[in-house]
Amino acid sequence: MTYCVGMILDKGLVMMSDTRTNSGVDNISVFRKMFHWCVPGERIVAIMTAGNLATTQAVISLLEERTKSPDERTNVLLKAPTMFQVATEVGRLLRATIAERQDANGEGGRNRFTASLIVAGQIKGMEPRLFLIYPEGNFIEASAETPFFQIGETKYGRPIIIRGYDAAMSMEDAAKLLMVSFDSTLKANLSVGMPLDLMVVERDRYEPRHCRRIEYEDAYFQSLSTAWADALRGAFHSLPDYDFTDPAATTA
Amino acid sequence: MTYCVGMILDKGLVMMSDTRTNSGVDNISVFRKMFHWCVPGERIVAIMTAGNLATTQAVISLLEERTKSPDERTNVLLKAPTMFQVATEVGRLLRATIAERQDANGEGGRNRFTASLIVAGQIKGMEPRLFLIYPEGNFIEASAETPFFQIGETKYGRPIIIRGYDAAMSMEDAAKLLMVSFDSTLKANLSVGMPLDLMVVERDRYEPRHCRRIEYEDAYFQSLSTAWADALRGAFHSLPDYDFTDPAATTA
Repeated sequence: MTYCVGMILDKGLVMMSDTRTNSGVDNISVFRKMFHWCVPGERIVAIMTAGNLATTQAVISLLEERTKSPDERTNVLLKAPTMFQVATEVGRLLRATIAERQDANGEGGRNRFTASLIVAGQIKGMEPRLFLIYPEGNFIEASAETPFFQIGETKYGRPIIIRGYDAAMSMEDAAKLLMVSFDSTLKANLSVGMPLDLMVVERDRYEPRHCRRIEYEDAYFQSLSTAWADALRGAFHSLPDYDFTDPAATTA
Repeated sequence: MTYCVGMILDKGLVMMSDTRTNSGVDNISVFRKMFHWCVPGERIVAIMTAGNLATTQAVISLLEERTKSPDERTNVLLKAPTMFQVATEVGRLLRATIAERQDANGEGGRNRFTASLIVAGQIKGMEPRLFLIYPEGNFIEASAETPFFQIGETKYGRPIIIRGYDAAMSMEDAAKLLMVSFDSTLKANLSVGMPLDLMVVERDRYEPRHCRRIEYEDAYFQSLSTAWADALRGAFHSLPDYDFTDPAATTA
């Protein structure tokens, strides 16, 4: 499995992904699932991946035209006139890559080799955009009502994002919120694993404001995890007490 | 879907279930998923259900021998000498009920009509016990290391239980913890819905200490939900701040 989140804020975009891949429980590896490309001063495009690793690696390679010699390559992500065009092209490549593998495997390929992607970025003169690309190649875009997308093992870390998200929050707080969401997921599910990748993109900067790999022994993440455990206990104990004998509590 | 949790504590057993059933999104109903039977002073057995509603209702009916006239019925749950025997019998009935429906539907029945159950209770002279019964009829028992079971839509509400559970906690706090776990799930997933059923069984009492249906407009649950949102925000803001320029935070 995997866990990736992309979030759109007033101040820009924040993304986080884990790096665990597994085929069964006895074949576990670390692979990067977050990629980005920049034209300084003009655009930044980021992609996060979940699903079949061969599929997602093929999509990234095809986007970079690695079938061609290095001097002949033209990355479509750096040429597309709008983020909508970027998402369309990424969706097309994703669908084609999945279909090729499925077709090549006949009946045995049915419903396999699928993957989902989060695409985020900004091109000069336009707003930052955030998309969720489905295995079928179509996609949806984030909005004020639905300002974040998750892919992979999404459920454990969802309640805290729902409650903690605020479009006006600082990029630092957004990074912190994602770390808490990842911490909850890591505690509950072995198929999501450290290290984590974090990227912060401020609007109108067209390059990462902050880009960081969070390793197992990361002091900040460890202190955050401990502090969150303590703070959750404190929050829990601050709640109104339940009373079995209170009339309002004994209606059945 | 469904969400049910059974938890074993030093002081006894606490159970909570939702009541939403759905077949698609346009056929939503309220059904009880928590059942219990007592022999005062001798035993209490509770069952919570998730999965195919016709299957789980059939299992409950068969346990109560509703195929016979009322004066000929002998509920196996009230006769089995140990909770292990109770779990064995419930598992046997569950497997048989699923198999009958599958067989009757041939190829179209494959992998359908399945259900999972949580069985909890205590028989005089023995410890309180908690079991998770699989559709295959086999089961596992809770232990000090794994003191709670969830069935249905389990992921959203799992992190807070992992962090909040303490075997020595009061039954009131355990009820509160389950309500917080359900609140997080209700906020994130439409297939889990109010009202909720709560039952608290103190050890060596052989009848519910507290049994209650929590309706939509329940004042305590509403105040808890609001207080939890506020407390979570407070907990989040109490965490150490993240700093993009701190050396420890810029290693990549």
